[in-house]
Amino acid sequence: MPRIYVVGIGPGNMEDMTDRAEKAIQDADVIVGYYTYIKLIKDYFPHKEFIESGMTKEVERCELVMKLAGEGKNVALISSGDSGIYGMAGIMLELMNKSKSQIPVEVIPGITAASSAASILGAPIMHDFAVISLSDLMTPLELIYKRLECAAEGDFVICIYNPKSKTRCDYIIKARDIILKYSKESTPVGIVRNAGRENEEYNITDLKNMLDYKIDMFTVIIIGNSSTYIENGKIITPRGYKID
Amino acid sequence: MPRIYVVGIGPGNMEDMTDRAEKAIQDADVIVGYYTYIKLIKDYFPHKEFIESGMTKEVERCELVMKLAGEGKNVALISSGDSGIYGMAGIMLELMNKSKSQIPVEVIPGITAASSAASILGAPIMHDFAVISLSDLMTPLELIYKRLECAAEGDFVICIYNPKSKTRCDYIIKARDIILKYSKESTPVGIVRNAGRENEEYNITDLKNMLDYKIDMFTVIIIGNSSTYIENGKIITPRGYKID
Repeated sequence: MPRIYVVGIGPGNMEDMTDRAEKAIQDADVIVGYYTYIKLIKDYFPHKEFIESGMTKEVERCELVMKLAGEGKNVALISSGDSGIYGMAGIMLELMNKSKSQIPVEVIPGITAASSAASILGAPIMHDFAVISLSDLMTPLELIYKRLECAAEGDFVICIYNPKSKTRCDYIIKARDIILKYSKESTPVGIVRNAGRENEEYNITDLKNMLDYKIDMFTVIIIGNSSTYIENGKIITPRGYKID
Repeated sequence: MPRIYVVGIGPGNMEDMTDRAEKAIQDADVIVGYYTYIKLIKDYFPHKEFIESGMTKEVERCELVMKLAGEGKNVALISSGDSGIYGMAGIMLELMNKSKSQIPVEVIPGITAASSAASILGAPIMHDFAVISLSDLMTPLELIYKRLECAAEGDFVICIYNPKSKTRCDYIIKARDIILKYSKESTPVGIVRNAGRENEEYNITDLKNMLDYKIDMFTVIIIGNSSTYIENGKIITPRGYKID
């Protein structure tokens, strides 16, 4: 019986990949994924067969995985970060259900972008947090703004995924405006690009100045809560331990 | 120059640990941690020195780490899950700042409990989510309830950490009541105990019936949003892809 693995590869370097993810890729006859993610790991698995696929081709990609597994192959479908957080696990399981396939699917979690970005910035998400994607490809923009409003009102640390694309330049401006209704201008903000990848860079700033930095699709933004502070170039959200 | 690693070991099995976490533990002269977490990994590193420490001894534990590093040793301070999410990274960095120590600290992320629990349940957190701990040891209970209210109002998938302890039996009842103000009784709920560990077990139920299941300190609860559904024994929160 063939297997389908939905593998979270983490940020994209081998060091931050789990053993289980690595073993699943080694066990697969074919590895299928978005070409940007394939590029990140291809050189680590030189003897493997890879099939690249374009963005917005998620449904076709899963159908290809089912076809290959139907031919008896073990297939690894890769996602960057965690396969279960804005990754490929959901759509893969949905299609398996629809086709009433009996092929076993194993979902393998990975280090999600909020975790890798946080580790670079210090310890900004030591407490309750919300993760919100600004991509409105499949989510109404009003719902995204409502979630930002609720997260800010609840004084959550807020992790923003997909903050900006070529066609969505102003969502992050509106997002910041919403958060500023509840949070001070001095609230610490960390902006991490290419976390754990080539050309990794990060900036530590605040809500007032955050829009002065480069923000794009490869960026994760972490906005502190009312307790968050910056010290020694690190962002820290204290959990409340008493330090004398 | 010695180093301090704050290592997220993931759920506690070697398969879900990253290579970087494993290398840091191998590179350490001493591994320090809460005894429950030491127990999970001790056998994998038979030649290492471990120092166990009790719960609520977080500050003392970090002071011990600083002392050992001050003696020239490489020290790994371990957290289960992600060291940056309710883990030891924050308090370690706070104490380093306070003591003006120059010893480098590397924060190493791991698979957080929400990710491991989700992978067992199917794909419940494919969309915007909030993580909330019900522990009020260091957080006012009113703030915890307010965050639950905001997260439910924003239709976030909600991941609840530390849902219940011996002294906190009724917070989860109140939490459910709050969420029911905004969500249907049929909203899918996944309850995972000992994710990725010995005696792992999970139940898939709904808001109406969730309190009939065993919930304790080793449990993570994932509550769906208004789109979440159960099919073939898996919880799925669709991201909105069109499936014909």
